[in-house]
Amino acid sequence: MDKLMLMIPGPTPVPETALLALAKHPIGHRTSEFSNIMAEVTENLKWLHQTTNDVLMLNVSGTGAVEAGIINFLSPGDRVLVGSNGKFGERWVEISQAYGLNVEAITAEWGKPLDTALFAEKLQADTQKQIKAVIITHSETSTGVLNDLETINRLVKEHGQALIMVDAVTSLGAFNLPIDTWGLDVVASGSQKGYMIPPGLGFVAVSPKAWEAYKTAKLPKYYLDLGKYSKSTAKNTTPFTPPVNLIVALHTTLRMMKDEGLDSIFTRHQRLKNATRAAVRGLNLPLFAADDYASPAITAVSPQGIESDKIRSLMNKRFDIALAGGQDHLKNKIFRIGHLGFVSDRDILSCIAALEVTLTELGHENFTPGAGVAAAAKIFNHS
Amino acid sequence: MDKLMLMIPGPTPVPETALLALAKHPIGHRTSEFSNIMAEVTENLKWLHQTTNDVLMLNVSGTGAVEAGIINFLSPGDRVLVGSNGKFGERWVEISQAYGLNVEAITAEWGKPLDTALFAEKLQADTQKQIKAVIITHSETSTGVLNDLETINRLVKEHGQALIMVDAVTSLGAFNLPIDTWGLDVVASGSQKGYMIPPGLGFVAVSPKAWEAYKTAKLPKYYLDLGKYSKSTAKNTTPFTPPVNLIVALHTTLRMMKDEGLDSIFTRHQRLKNATRAAVRGLNLPLFAADDYASPAITAVSPQGIESDKIRSLMNKRFDIALAGGQDHLKNKIFRIGHLGFVSDRDILSCIAALEVTLTELGHENFTPGAGVAAAAKIFNHS
Repeated sequence: MDKLMLMIPGPTPVPETALLALAKHPIGHRTSEFSNIMAEVTENLKWLHQTTNDVLMLNVSGTGAVEAGIINFLSPGDRVLVGSNGKFGERWVEISQAYGLNVEAITAEWGKPLDTALFAEKLQADTQKQIKAVIITHSETSTGVLNDLETINRLVKEHGQALIMVDAVTSLGAFNLPIDTWGLDVVASGSQKGYMIPPGLGFVAVSPKAWEAYKTAKLPKYYLDLGKYSKSTAKNTTPFTPPVNLIVALHTTLRMMKDEGLDSIFTRHQRLKNATRAAVRGLNLPLFAADDYASPAITAVSPQGIESDKIRSLMNKRFDIALAGGQDHLKNKIFRIGHLGFVSDRDILSCIAALEVTLTELGHENFTPGAGVAAAAKIFNHS
Repeated sequence: MDKLMLMIPGPTPVPETALLALAKHPIGHRTSEFSNIMAEVTENLKWLHQTTNDVLMLNVSGTGAVEAGIINFLSPGDRVLVGSNGKFGERWVEISQAYGLNVEAITAEWGKPLDTALFAEKLQADTQKQIKAVIITHSETSTGVLNDLETINRLVKEHGQALIMVDAVTSLGAFNLPIDTWGLDVVASGSQKGYMIPPGLGFVAVSPKAWEAYKTAKLPKYYLDLGKYSKSTAKNTTPFTPPVNLIVALHTTLRMMKDEGLDSIFTRHQRLKNATRAAVRGLNLPLFAADDYASPAITAVSPQGIESDKIRSLMNKRFDIALAGGQDHLKNKIFRIGHLGFVSDRDILSCIAALEVTLTELGHENFTPGAGVAAAAKIFNHS
C-alpha cells in the first residue's frame, strides 16, 4: 500500500499544507511578491533561532550549510577543535582538513557524548589564544547522542577568542537553542529536519563576532560566501536563484511553528523522545545512547541478537514505516527511530505497536505483548 | 487574477505532472526506491547531455554548478581564460579570482558575442601550454547572446592542453550541445531552465580528461567536490541528502523530454526564437542581439523611447505575464522574453499579442496593430 510513514531522521514528514505549497507554480525570484515572502521567512527564522543575528538561507544540504559556517570565518592554517563522536562529527573534521585548517579532533566513542573536560583542557592550555574555532555537532544524527553544547560553549566563552560553530541540523526546532542568550556564533541547519519541509535548503545563523572574523578570513569561497547572502537578505532577496518552491513551503511551515510556539515544540519533542525510550525499554531492547545525553530527535536502538536491518525491512514491508539503519561500523547493528519535526504522539504509538508485531514475527519473545505501547502510553498520560 | 505566465529565463514554466510530483511526500534517499529513480534520472541526463561521461547532480543553483565545474579541476595560480560579455561571464571571472586563479578575462560589450579571434591569439601564443582552462558562457542569459562555443572549443582542442568549461545554464536542453562529439570537458547547468522543474538542482558533466586534471587539482572543496558525487552516482546514490522532491519531479520531466526527442526540442526552441524575433521586428522594436548570435532561450529587446520597466510592469498587471528586466547598466534599458523549457508556440502568440496591447497603451504607435502576431504566425505557418 502506498502509505509511507517516515520515521527516519530526515527527510522528515511534511505537512499537507507544505506539500501543496511545493506544488504551486514557481514565481519569479526578482519580484516584490517573492520579496514579501523572503521578508516574513527571514523574520520567522530569527524567531525560530531565538536571535537578532543574521539567519541566512542557502540552496544546499545540511552539510553545505555547516561547510559555509566553517569556511567563511577562518583562514588556512587556523587552529580549530572539532568534536567527533559520530558520522557527522567526522565529516566536520574532514571538511576542516580539506580546507587546510590545523585540525584537532576531540573524539569520543560513537554512542557516547563528547567529554567536556577534554575541551576545557585544550581551551585553558591555549593561553596564546591560537584556537580560532570550536566546532560541535549538537545532536549527532548517526547515534542519537546530544552533546553538551551548553558546557562546551561556556568553556569557549571563557577562552574568549574562539568562535563556537554548531551543527544544529537535527537539534534546531527540536531542542531549546537560545542563540543570543548563549552567544552562539555560527549555527547551521537543514530544511528536511525540524523545519518540516523536504531537503534542499540550508540555514546559517551568524553572530556579529563571527562577522568580525569574516572580514579577515581567507579561505576561498563564492557560492558559499555568506557575505553575499547577508547583503541580499537585508534587501529581502537572494544572491543566486533560490529554490523558490521550497521557500514558499517554508513560509507555511514557519507559520505553523509560530502557531505551535517554541515551548510547545520543544516539549513535544521531549515527550516523543521520552515515550520512544520508555517503549524501547518496555520491549527489553537496549537503547544505544543513555538517558543523560539522548537526542530529542532520534532514538537509536541496538537490538542485540536480531539484525537491525531485518527489523527495518519487515517494518517497511509490513507497515510502510521507514526506520533508519546504522552508518559505517554500526551498519546492521542499530536502527534509528526519527521523531523530529512533523511528528505526533500518535506516530510514536503507531511505530511502537508495529515494532511489537515485527519483533514477535522475528522471534524476539523477550517482552510482554503490549508492553512497548503501554510504556509509551504512560508517558503520554502523564505529560 | 492568479494566472501567472512566466516568460523569464528562469524559473521557467513547470508542467503540471512535475508540480504534482513535487507535492508527493518525500521518500528516504537511502532506499532502493530512490536508487531506482536515481538510476533512470542519471541515464536520461546522459541522453540529454549527449554523452557517456559522468553527469552529476548537486543541490545548488546554476552558479554553484559552474563553480563546482571550475574549482574541481584547477589549482591556485593556474592560468585561465574567461569569456566575459554579460552578467554571468563576469561572475565566472569573479569566481576564478575568488579562488586565486591567474585569470585573464576576454571581454566583449554586453549584447555582442565573444570575439573568437582573441581566444585564437591567446591560445596560439601559449606555446608553454600554461593555460589550464577556457571558461565560456554559452548562452549569456543577461543579454540573449549565444557565444560561438563550437569555434572556441575547436581552438581549445588545437591548444591541446586546456580544458573547456562551459556554462550551459540556458543552452542545455534548448540548443544542440553534443558533449561527446565536441569533446567538451565540463558542462554546467541548472534545473529551473531547460529541465522544466523549479530551481534547486545543478548539473555538471565531466569528461575523462577533466577527471585526469581532478587528480592533481588543489583548490579546496568538500560540498562541491565532484569526486564524491561521481563515486555515489555510480552506486545510484548521493553523497549528501539530495533534494528528493526535485529529483522525483526531474524524473518526470526527463521522460517528457525523451518523448519529445532531442531534435524536436531543439527545433522547437529555434522556432520560438525565430517567431519572437520576427514579432519584435514586426512591432518596430530593436532587438538587443543580432540574428547571427541570438540565444535560443532568451530574446532581449531594447525599446528605445519607452522605459522597459513600464512595459514589464503593465504586462504583469494587465496580463499576468512576467518578463525579465535588464541587469546592472541595462536596468530599465532592455526587457527579456524567456522562451526556454516548457514553452509552446501558443505562449509566444499570447505574449506577443499582449505586448501589442501594452505598447499601444504606453503610446508606442510605431507599428500596425496585429503586425507582431502576424510576423510570429508567419514563422509558425512555415515551420
